[in-house]
Amino acid sequence: MGQYPWHSLLTIEEKSATPVYLQIANAIIKEIQVGRMKPGTKLPGVLVTSDLLKVNKKTVEKAYSELSLQRWINVTPKVGAFVSKDLPDRENRALQSPGAFNIAEKPHFDLEGQGIFQLPPLQRGNDIVFNDGFPDGRLIDHALVSRTYRSIVNLKSYRPLLSYTDPYGDGVLREVLANYLNETRGIKCSAENVMITRGSQMALYISMMLLLKRGDVSVVSDPNYLFADETLSYLQSKIHKVAVDKNGINIDKIEEVCKRDGVRLVYVTPHHHHPTTVTLSAARRMQLLKLAEKYRFAIIEDDYDFDFHYCHNPILPLASVDTEGSVIYIGSFSKTVSPAFRIGYMVASKKFIDEAASLRKIIDFQGDAILERTIAQLINQGELQRMIRKSLKEYGKRRDYMNDLLTTELAGALKFDKPRGGMAIWVTLAEGLRLDELSKAARKQNVSISDGRAYGNKNAFRLGFASLEPWEIGEGIRVLRDILMNVLKS
Amino acid sequence: MGQYPWHSLLTIEEKSATPVYLQIANAIIKEIQVGRMKPGTKLPGVLVTSDLLKVNKKTVEKAYSELSLQRWINVTPKVGAFVSKDLPDRENRALQSPGAFNIAEKPHFDLEGQGIFQLPPLQRGNDIVFNDGFPDGRLIDHALVSRTYRSIVNLKSYRPLLSYTDPYGDGVLREVLANYLNETRGIKCSAENVMITRGSQMALYISMMLLLKRGDVSVVSDPNYLFADETLSYLQSKIHKVAVDKNGINIDKIEEVCKRDGVRLVYVTPHHHHPTTVTLSAARRMQLLKLAEKYRFAIIEDDYDFDFHYCHNPILPLASVDTEGSVIYIGSFSKTVSPAFRIGYMVASKKFIDEAASLRKIIDFQGDAILERTIAQLINQGELQRMIRKSLKEYGKRRDYMNDLLTTELAGALKFDKPRGGMAIWVTLAEGLRLDELSKAARKQNVSISDGRAYGNKNAFRLGFASLEPWEIGEGIRVLRDILMNVLKS
Repeated sequence: MGQYPWHSLLTIEEKSATPVYLQIANAIIKEIQVGRMKPGTKLPGVLVTSDLLKVNKKTVEKAYSELSLQRWINVTPKVGAFVSKDLPDRENRALQSPGAFNIAEKPHFDLEGQGIFQLPPLQRGNDIVFNDGFPDGRLIDHALVSRTYRSIVNLKSYRPLLSYTDPYGDGVLREVLANYLNETRGIKCSAENVMITRGSQMALYISMMLLLKRGDVSVVSDPNYLFADETLSYLQSKIHKVAVDKNGINIDKIEEVCKRDGVRLVYVTPHHHHPTTVTLSAARRMQLLKLAEKYRFAIIEDDYDFDFHYCHNPILPLASVDTEGSVIYIGSFSKTVSPAFRIGYMVASKKFIDEAASLRKIIDFQGDAILERTIAQLINQGELQRMIRKSLKEYGKRRDYMNDLLTTELAGALKFDKPRGGMAIWVTLAEGLRLDELSKAARKQNVSISDGRAYGNKNAFRLGFASLEPWEIGEGIRVLRDILMNVLKS
Repeated sequence: MGQYPWHSLLTIEEKSATPVYLQIANAIIKEIQVGRMKPGTKLPGVLVTSDLLKVNKKTVEKAYSELSLQRWINVTPKVGAFVSKDLPDRENRALQSPGAFNIAEKPHFDLEGQGIFQLPPLQRGNDIVFNDGFPDGRLIDHALVSRTYRSIVNLKSYRPLLSYTDPYGDGVLREVLANYLNETRGIKCSAENVMITRGSQMALYISMMLLLKRGDVSVVSDPNYLFADETLSYLQSKIHKVAVDKNGINIDKIEEVCKRDGVRLVYVTPHHHHPTTVTLSAARRMQLLKLAEKYRFAIIEDDYDFDFHYCHNPILPLASVDTEGSVIYIGSFSKTVSPAFRIGYMVASKKFIDEAASLRKIIDFQGDAILERTIAQLINQGELQRMIRKSLKEYGKRRDYMNDLLTTELAGALKFDKPRGGMAIWVTLAEGLRLDELSKAARKQNVSISDGRAYGNKNAFRLGFASLEPWEIGEGIRVLRDILMNVLKS
């Protein structure tokens, strides 16, 4: 036993955070558990081990004592230390095999087609990234947000926020938000109709989970917001895609689906359709609400950019005139405060909100109580509204600038309408030009644009303007122009 | 038309954040949408309206112009303004009905039995709350956490963290955590095996969602961690409950279920069983791993309180000796940093982590990138470890104090073992005493304890000590003693 191969088993790391005696004990535990030290085996003596490992005798003693306390070994004074006989024998195996259980075999949902899951381009170093229409984090008054956050942390009433709170979200924010939505968007609701979520995506996920069984029919626009589609297909809904024209989604076509297959939910972005930025016309809004009443489906109204409208005032949401409780209204502060601060919300009947909270509890328990309280305070002090106005002014300029550049520099190569709101221009390439090739060529010159896959390869994409300064927009469009000019010439 | 009942329709609020012209426009839109103003109806003239509403003529003009821009009305100069004829007619209805679509009718999962969903008692004003075993937020160095947080916000590299990031979690934290888990817990993993989640609950939800189809068999201990049970039953798993004794869950009984029904996953809390605080014995650990290999089930190892162990060192997790990839290892920083900062993690095969990230993306996109980076930095600087040591010392004292008090003051009325770790003592009332009655009587004296429902009405409960100062523990136990003394006497 004296020549036990300690060295193959254990290298003592002097600088490790784990004390040496524990390194020894853990190495022996691992040997026992992987079956290289069998039950009943006598361990080498303390002196021999300390000599071989070049550590103090006390250290080895402490290791053995730890092993004994943890019941891996039995120590009989004057006889020696033995691997506990109570332990089951185990075959000797290598670590790190791929997994005994098979995830793909029986997943809760089919995981096929998940390959297209694809995040929009990230903001990177010196590149110019035309993203999908994200806000500009540089315009946000982070100092104000942190100051407010800290002022809440310093409150006496802060302590309860640090413990487990409420799956519905912070009670103060629910109250403030209900008032805010009444006042700014005409949505008649009280706190009990409001659940705070992490970003609007969680609200989408939860409402779709609650509404859909596998195979239930949902209707979306074509093209549609990528992550709404992804969520529906992950939940194995039968998805019907309905065309969008200049007045938004075609409601007559939705009715056809209702008659033919029965519809469980319709997902819409009425304010500015995502991705095409079109506003759902007044007539179609009313038609859609009537349809929901007639065929008893739920409308998920994703009002992701209510605050960003450059011409007249924003049109009030469907939820503001929903007399029948057909609408589940979803909004977010990610675009106004920051995408990193993920606070969204869902407004619906109390019954639906109660069910949503039950699901939310097992997903996540609760949100970020302190951050939620921060937002409540920013709203109450009018600061959120000021932040929105400031961003809106800047984004409006950027929209105009991009629109002018596209008109003067790229007429002929692409079609687009000046959007009345939002953070991106929906651009379709002229016939004969290929978006995937343009995207590839632009990448080589450090300019990122979508390759169009996110919206069904229609040779069209969202050219985000909000997160870029004018010089960045100019430089990026110059690169795109030069590439297209070469192609058009050749 | 002159006597249009404006006053029943609209009260102008001078102090509202919404400008007066928009209040007028929105009120008219609502009238149109709910069907009280029909398509083709002529609106009262500007002068009449301004007179009736006692507002400036310009304001009414602006309101009508807004309505026209939004296409709700058509204005013909010198003739008048008319509700657009393109709008569909709509019956006149009251707002606020309960919901046209029926959620309960076809939920994705049965929602029965959700009534028992019950949060542990919240921390409140002057009450003494013996919670389920939560940390004490007062011991946390919030100043340090905020300082670190702010230092990251001030970094140049901060900007990317403010935009959309990665559903796997912050790359830096994944690296740091993989090293930390290697070093402190012997878990051989690299960053690709790690996903950062919001608290351990999200890791539980995601792993269970991926593993289970409706009706799949899962095994848990009896009693068990409430929210693991709730998640499994929400997902409609067929749950088998297996008894726990002083060595932890009975593995032989698990094998019986494997033989009889086939098992898809086993949920365990080996370090300190939740709720009873028992440690899974060395022999049973090895037996469980062998069983997982033989019957190819997944082990979800919820190591929720690895850091809180008062006697010898913590026993290394099952995941550290899992040679077959059977173990999905779940941990959390909620108990070390703060429950309000919800950062947990999941360690598993790369394949499993990739699937988990796909699901996480539709639930939530991503976590709190800045907070995740904050934790990475706290680990790298050794601060997290210092915070743990500091809390551990204090919690150890509180455990001893509560244990001594229970022994001296309440012997005879209850049974318990001094826990070797964790944040609560598992207490069973003596025969003839009723926990629900004790809980009720204590509430009247502003002392909260569980009524036992959370753990299957076994007349047993977790008496949390970690979040209370010694005087609070003493005062609370005195109240419980006085109640029990009266009962025992009568």
